[in-house]
Amino acid sequence: MSGITARRVVLAGRPSGWPTLDNFRLERFTPPPVPAGGLLLRARYLSLDPYMRMRMDEHSHYAGSVGLGETMHGQAVAEVLQSEHPDYAEGDTVLAPTGWASHAVSDGTGLRKLDPTLAPTTTGLGVLGMPGFTAYSGLMVIGKPKPGETVVVTSASGPVGSVVGQLAKITGCRTVGIAGGADKCRYLREELGFDAAVDHHAPDFAEQLAAACPAGVDVHFENVGGAVWQAVLPLFNRFARVPLCGLITQYNGGSQAADGELAETMQVVLTKNMTLRGFFNTEFVEEHFSEFLRVVSDGIADGRIKYREDVTEGLEHAPEAFLRMLRGQNLGKVLVKVGE
Amino acid sequence: MSGITARRVVLAGRPSGWPTLDNFRLERFTPPPVPAGGLLLRARYLSLDPYMRMRMDEHSHYAGSVGLGETMHGQAVAEVLQSEHPDYAEGDTVLAPTGWASHAVSDGTGLRKLDPTLAPTTTGLGVLGMPGFTAYSGLMVIGKPKPGETVVVTSASGPVGSVVGQLAKITGCRTVGIAGGADKCRYLREELGFDAAVDHHAPDFAEQLAAACPAGVDVHFENVGGAVWQAVLPLFNRFARVPLCGLITQYNGGSQAADGELAETMQVVLTKNMTLRGFFNTEFVEEHFSEFLRVVSDGIADGRIKYREDVTEGLEHAPEAFLRMLRGQNLGKVLVKVGE
Repeated sequence: MSGITARRVVLAGRPSGWPTLDNFRLERFTPPPVPAGGLLLRARYLSLDPYMRMRMDEHSHYAGSVGLGETMHGQAVAEVLQSEHPDYAEGDTVLAPTGWASHAVSDGTGLRKLDPTLAPTTTGLGVLGMPGFTAYSGLMVIGKPKPGETVVVTSASGPVGSVVGQLAKITGCRTVGIAGGADKCRYLREELGFDAAVDHHAPDFAEQLAAACPAGVDVHFENVGGAVWQAVLPLFNRFARVPLCGLITQYNGGSQAADGELAETMQVVLTKNMTLRGFFNTEFVEEHFSEFLRVVSDGIADGRIKYREDVTEGLEHAPEAFLRMLRGQNLGKVLVKVGE
Repeated sequence: MSGITARRVVLAGRPSGWPTLDNFRLERFTPPPVPAGGLLLRARYLSLDPYMRMRMDEHSHYAGSVGLGETMHGQAVAEVLQSEHPDYAEGDTVLAPTGWASHAVSDGTGLRKLDPTLAPTTTGLGVLGMPGFTAYSGLMVIGKPKPGETVVVTSASGPVGSVVGQLAKITGCRTVGIAGGADKCRYLREELGFDAAVDHHAPDFAEQLAAACPAGVDVHFENVGGAVWQAVLPLFNRFARVPLCGLITQYNGGSQAADGELAETMQVVLTKNMTLRGFFNTEFVEEHFSEFLRVVSDGIADGRIKYREDVTEGLEHAPEAFLRMLRGQNLGKVLVKVGE
């Protein structure tokens, strides 16, 4: 494909602790030739997600590391510019692992066609995509909430947490969100219908959380770790379930002290007969993805599931948007409109 | 019941850290009258178990505390001396929550009749009783071992761990026991058929454990916590299951430092998609106790499940036997032959 000058963001250096703009570099490149049976894609919207921080480390515990000088990993809504693949035609809209790049060639691996008539295609990166499915599988398959139980979710205004809370509400649970700042808490209560929302920046956060959970905690959807975990720990009921989805406070080498003593957590897990279960959504795709799409699409259609997007214009601004998200300054699913 | 002078061991003081003999007091007492429909029992064999240490604390996380001056809690094999209860006759042998006492009156709550023709009745306190059922339910219901997987068990020579290991072996797993001292490790390998046994006192314990688990760890039956947990942590495979049954190193206020950082454990649980499940066997009794009795009785009958008992003579020596057990100086299920 002569004539295309593409852009990409590569990992320029590994962060120690919090990433900085210096860790990224915008490059121009010429896409390689399309392989036989392959496709050329133009990315329209790129998804930014917290897991990407872990892949910036040399020895990532979380799937693979990004190599120095390699394109940052990521999913995008993309347009098929050219196709020799039997399942895709020029002009199709697909979900694709393009990375942080304006263009990508693909052999078809990991692609999923999106129907623009069903829902805005960007939902395929959020509420109807991996964040939504992470929420669905963690809450419904691991958490198994029952009507009347109390469900707590961290990062509650984010693309995972907001779906967790709304699904818990649909299930008939008391739903308590933890988020950073008054605006996010108001959004949870007033727009998403959470029963309570607690600001983890508040000096009396632990007391507020306890007051918001008068009957204790039955399911805790954990995205954060650290001081938030310490505040939930005394509230667990017998047989509480903890889908452990992420540990954002640990990704940037946060204070270990804030995480408290292991002995205390083990003691509570033992004596409350709790289940703590780490997971990646991928293990549940085969069995649960289609039921997820049905349930959440229905929820969007009848207004019981709402979502927000936080869109940054221009691939060149992806690093700033990513850092902003890690600091919790977004509200809604973080997307980058890639641009020309 | 005039004429009976009974003996009991009461909690004389609460320990701070390791208990001492001063925390116990032997008393004589006259059993109260048998209530209508009740029974008078004479204890023959008293069971000593690690959970009793937790009940010595004022605010026990583990079921109820023993009050100061109250009889220490415990199960015994007892003989029915007098019965007004329709289900029991004089001379019957029963399991009963007599506490650390030579005699007890009962309204029948918590009693189970034992058939002395089926197996020695003391097995009702060990391999065919709550320790055996703790092993069975934790391993089979929570751990769900599959043939070819590696199962690690701590306190492996004890009444719970020895059944865990032998059930894992019957399931077709590689079975690795952790115990304190060369004698116990030899017992595990040579008498109980463990594939490997590692002495947690060894200076290179962690290296030995890693060498004993060349394919990683799929199920870890945790009775101990502390440094042993730290050694297992790097060995977990994806989807590993941890039935969390006890934390002996924490019962006596052991060094918290040895337990390591919570952040590290949470990270491994997350990235290995692990299940950590605290449990008491009681939640599984209704659904699984009869299948347990069948499986383990069959295993004893055909020689695939062996057990040992460590019997101390005389109720007055129960405190010493209990302290010896907490220090790990027993081999096999600790019983006290109550005596006259």
